[in-house]
Amino acid sequence: MDCSLFFAGTGGSLPTARRGLPATLLRHGGDRILFDCGEGTQRELVRTVGLPDITEVFLTHHHLDHWLGLPGMLKSFELRDRERPLTILGPPGTERLIASLKPIIGGLRYRLSVTDLEPDAIVEFDGYEIQALRVRHRGEAYGYAIVEHDRPGRFDAELAEDLGVSPGPDFGRLQNGETIAGVRPEQVMGETRRGRRIVLSGDTGPCDMIRYAAGGADLLVHEATFLDEERERAHETGHSTARQAAELAAEAGVGMLALTHVSSRYPASAVADEASAIFGRTVVPRDHDTIEIPFPERGEPVLLRWDRKTGQPQPVPAG
Amino acid sequence: MDCSLFFAGTGGSLPTARRGLPATLLRHGGDRILFDCGEGTQRELVRTVGLPDITEVFLTHHHLDHWLGLPGMLKSFELRDRERPLTILGPPGTERLIASLKPIIGGLRYRLSVTDLEPDAIVEFDGYEIQALRVRHRGEAYGYAIVEHDRPGRFDAELAEDLGVSPGPDFGRLQNGETIAGVRPEQVMGETRRGRRIVLSGDTGPCDMIRYAAGGADLLVHEATFLDEERERAHETGHSTARQAAELAAEAGVGMLALTHVSSRYPASAVADEASAIFGRTVVPRDHDTIEIPFPERGEPVLLRWDRKTGQPQPVPAG
Repeated sequence: MDCSLFFAGTGGSLPTARRGLPATLLRHGGDRILFDCGEGTQRELVRTVGLPDITEVFLTHHHLDHWLGLPGMLKSFELRDRERPLTILGPPGTERLIASLKPIIGGLRYRLSVTDLEPDAIVEFDGYEIQALRVRHRGEAYGYAIVEHDRPGRFDAELAEDLGVSPGPDFGRLQNGETIAGVRPEQVMGETRRGRRIVLSGDTGPCDMIRYAAGGADLLVHEATFLDEERERAHETGHSTARQAAELAAEAGVGMLALTHVSSRYPASAVADEASAIFGRTVVPRDHDTIEIPFPERGEPVLLRWDRKTGQPQPVPAG
Repeated sequence: MDCSLFFAGTGGSLPTARRGLPATLLRHGGDRILFDCGEGTQRELVRTVGLPDITEVFLTHHHLDHWLGLPGMLKSFELRDRERPLTILGPPGTERLIASLKPIIGGLRYRLSVTDLEPDAIVEFDGYEIQALRVRHRGEAYGYAIVEHDRPGRFDAELAEDLGVSPGPDFGRLQNGETIAGVRPEQVMGETRRGRRIVLSGDTGPCDMIRYAAGGADLLVHEATFLDEERERAHETGHSTARQAAELAAEAGVGMLALTHVSSRYPASAVADEASAIFGRTVVPRDHDTIEIPFPERGEPVLLRWDRKTGQPQPVPAG
């Protein structure tokens, strides 16, 4: 089951030549779920991986730069005769926000649902869930944890057969927990394998909710709007510095830290350097980069750069 | 006095990989005036010619794809501490539209004015005027004519001196219409030189208003949403075919026809071919192309392609 994040926009507040407004696409198996939808998101998708029939959009909060791409995208779905329903979820106030856009968007022939999520809400998907995490920004704001269910251990077919179980339906029953011909599942099944865990901070100052949720996460995507030299300003505006994000990643023991919401104030290398000094496995994705997150037993997350020439993600060259 | 149009977005309805939503920037001397502002316009400007302190935005009509870039752009101006006032002008309903966006945009520290233009409105600028042209689309929709004032003829300083006028203040008075030392202005001034005339159709079916306004225009920017094989559909939706735009350009006798609002249905070459068969001086600008419009006596409009490598417009190679 493939799982990756596509970074459609990694900037914040103001779009720059290199970084568009926030939008991150989760691709989990066939699921396409968007986190935030800054102005221009549909276009960034169209010009790269294509605009998929996203089924859920999770908003982290209601600042303009995080959702202004919604009306145009909803309208584009309409224009291409979408039939699949779409759900928009976010902190309290999301229903009101989308309702206020109705006069702009007009009628849609597909079903649009909107849900205000409670601060501890869990939304179930096939094989994983998405948890709302209340974070510390200006106004009501959420991060999200994407948490896969644990998977059963590996089934040792050879051993089962040696123990006298016949291949066929009995194999299935054994794997589903039944004892077959005196053979107990735990004799032929490896240990339960943990699912993947990805945490997106949204816009936030460093906060315990993210620190806690990111415990042992494979990937933490954390905002880094400021460098530590502007720690005071970060605090006042409800944002984090690269150093703070790295400290939090180190404490939580994540597999990889990806910094986003990068300001045009600094070169991305300065953001990366400040964080890497604290937490080595730090990356600063560019727009259109992908992070693939393999099952934990198969390796660590890997950053792939968008290659404009081939229109494909490519491994980042060493150095 | 330089005069050019920068095509920030040349698509329509749906953004494609190659064409963004409608926005055209007029650069006249130091003036920066935007016509339409589709989603993503601020970004397209930022990544090419820069986002200037646009002083006027003229909307052609109120369909979403023509104005959804406004809220983000207005907010970006705010974030970079703009002080200059900004005026948005458009067909009746523009004031209501922008008022409905107030909850989204929030407070702005610079002055924002909004004007519903009468169908025959003329807005004066330094050395030129912009005329509203009521066109034939769905709902109230305008095209615009940018019409320079005529310029006085060339002053023949040598001749004036030969006739006994002393260089200095008397030269100025003579050029301003006074008779000096028996020398009448018409003796030393060439013929009045006509100003430039540029017409933008906005979204419209072929209509007399544009045909009339484009009479002798240096440049007509006309929509070509359809090919002639879909003439019926163009009619139903209030759009034009490439052939219709070319016929109109030929009848009006314009210097150059630039087709925009190009659909992803067809390759741009098909649009260009259909129109060129009728009207030779047809171009189909790509996103980020520029058309420079010299004074009529100095030459014809010229299409320049945006060169991503140099970040500069370049002449289109022959063929």
